[in-house]
Amino acid sequence: MNRPSQDPPPFAESVAIVGVGLIGGSIAAGLKRRGFTGPIVGVGRDPSRMEQARSRGLVDRVADVPALVDADLIVFCTPVDLIADGIRAAAGRCRPGTLLTDAGSVKHSICRALDGGLPEGVTFIGSHPLAGSEKHGFEYADADLFVNRVCVLTPEPRTPGEALRRLRAFWEFLGMELVELPADEHDGAVARTSHLPHVVAAALAGIVSPELYRLAGSGFRDTTRIAAGSPELWVGILLENADSLLPALDTYAGQLQEFRKAIDRRDAIRLRELLDEARRNRDALTN
Amino acid sequence: MNRPSQDPPPFAESVAIVGVGLIGGSIAAGLKRRGFTGPIVGVGRDPSRMEQARSRGLVDRVADVPALVDADLIVFCTPVDLIADGIRAAAGRCRPGTLLTDAGSVKHSICRALDGGLPEGVTFIGSHPLAGSEKHGFEYADADLFVNRVCVLTPEPRTPGEALRRLRAFWEFLGMELVELPADEHDGAVARTSHLPHVVAAALAGIVSPELYRLAGSGFRDTTRIAAGSPELWVGILLENADSLLPALDTYAGQLQEFRKAIDRRDAIRLRELLDEARRNRDALTN
Repeated sequence: MNRPSQDPPPFAESVAIVGVGLIGGSIAAGLKRRGFTGPIVGVGRDPSRMEQARSRGLVDRVADVPALVDADLIVFCTPVDLIADGIRAAAGRCRPGTLLTDAGSVKHSICRALDGGLPEGVTFIGSHPLAGSEKHGFEYADADLFVNRVCVLTPEPRTPGEALRRLRAFWEFLGMELVELPADEHDGAVARTSHLPHVVAAALAGIVSPELYRLAGSGFRDTTRIAAGSPELWVGILLENADSLLPALDTYAGQLQEFRKAIDRRDAIRLRELLDEARRNRDALTN
Repeated sequence: MNRPSQDPPPFAESVAIVGVGLIGGSIAAGLKRRGFTGPIVGVGRDPSRMEQARSRGLVDRVADVPALVDADLIVFCTPVDLIADGIRAAAGRCRPGTLLTDAGSVKHSICRALDGGLPEGVTFIGSHPLAGSEKHGFEYADADLFVNRVCVLTPEPRTPGEALRRLRAFWEFLGMELVELPADEHDGAVARTSHLPHVVAAALAGIVSPELYRLAGSGFRDTTRIAAGSPELWVGILLENADSLLPALDTYAGQLQEFRKAIDRRDAIRLRELLDEARRNRDALTN
C-alpha cells in the first residue's frame, strides 16, 4: 500500500482536515501510513482535543478555520448539518486552486447549498466514503478504514475535470473504490442502504428493554448494533436526508404490514414468499 | 470442559437426537467432545443424510422414531411445528423413566399440547437453547455452540424434580447457563428478542434490492444478517408464536411511526430522545 515518499502525491501538497474524529482521524492516519509527506493540518472546535490529536502525531499542526489559507485540499469531516456552512465560510479565505470536499453521508442538500456560491477558482466536490463504525473519536482512527470500501463522489456537470481528477487520486490513495453519482441519486440509495437501517435498528433497540437481554442471542445483537451509534450525528444525518428517508420509511412500514397480515392470518404460503424474497436479496450480499 | 469418561454423566446412559441439523448435530458433537460415552442415536427422515451423519462419527447409530425405545433421553431438534406431534408419537413407545425434551424456539404451544398427554413415567420438559446461526445442516455442527449461552427450561409445577435435575445436568454438560421460566413468559420474551428481530431484518432485506448493495456498508449487512436464515424454519417459528409476536410487531410499528413523525416534522429534539433511548438500551448489551 505504501507509495515511495519521494513522489509527491498528485492530489495536494498539504491537506487540512476539519473535524478530527473517527473519519477525519482515519484520513490523517491513512495519509501518513501511505507516505504522504506534506503537512496535515487538523481543525477542530475543542483546542484540548486538537492538541491531543497533534501530540499523538495524527496531525502536524492544529488551526482554526480562518487559518486554513495554506492547505490546497480541505476535507470537511464535521457533522453533516454543519458541512455546507463550514465550507462556505472557509472558501472565502482560500486561494484559487483550493479543492474542498467532505465526508458527509448526505449530499444533495450540501451540493445544492454550495452550487455556484464559491469564489472563482475554488472548487467543492461532494464525497461520501462508505466506511465507519458505531465508535467515534480519533482514538479509534484506523489507517486502513477506507481500504477496499466504496467512496461516492458527486461532481456536477460544471465541475472542472482537473479538480475531479485530484479528488479521485486522494481517495484512491487511501485505498477506496470510487463511484460517481448525482447527489440526489446518492441520497435516495443511502436512504435505503444506510439511513433506513439505522432507524429500523434504533426503533427495535428502543422497545426491547434490557431486562429481556438475557434471552437475546446474536440475531438481536447484530440487528441492533448500529443503534449504538452517536445520536447527535444521526439526528443530523436523518434530518438532512428527510426527503429521501420518509418514502423509504413508508415502503418499509408497508412491508412490515405485509408480514403482519401473513402472520395474523396464519398464511404460511405468503409468509414463506416474504421470507424467501428477503433471503434471496440478502444472499446477494456476499459478506 | 472434558469430564473424565469413566464417570457416567448423570443425565442419561444413552441419548437420541431427533433431527440432526445444526442444533442436533452440535448436541451430538458437544456430548462426544465432553466425554459422553453412551450411544448417541440419530433419527431423521432422510436415510442418506443420516448415514452421512453416522459415517462422520457424529452419531453412533441411526434409527427411525419407532426404534427409539432404548434411549433414556430423547432431544427433539426438528422444526418447531413438528415437535409436539413427534414427541407424542415417540412417547407412546418409551419405557418409564424416559425423559423427552426439545430445542424449539417456541414453548407454550408445545407444552400445552403435551400437558398430561404422556404415558405414566415418561416426562417431557421444554428446552430452548439460545444458540444457532443463519447456517443449517450438521455440516456446521459445532461442539462448542452452546458454551456460555443461555438455555431456557420450562418445567410445569407437576414436573418431577428428578427429571428436571437430569435435564439441567444435560444442558450444563454442554456448557449452557440455565434459566427456568413459564412457557408463556418465555414466548413473550423471545417474541421481542428473537422473532421480532427476524421480521424486522427480513422486511428490510425484502425492500432493498441488490442493485443498491454497492452503497451498503456494515450497518446494512449486520441489520439484515438473520434474513439469510432458513425461510422454512422461520415460517414455523413465527406462526407458532403468532400470539406473542403480533403485539410485539404492533409495538414496533408504533415506535417506527414515532421516528417517522419526528423526521417528518424535522423535530431534532424528539428524534434525539428516540435515538438516545435506543442507544441507552443497546449499550446495556455488553457484547
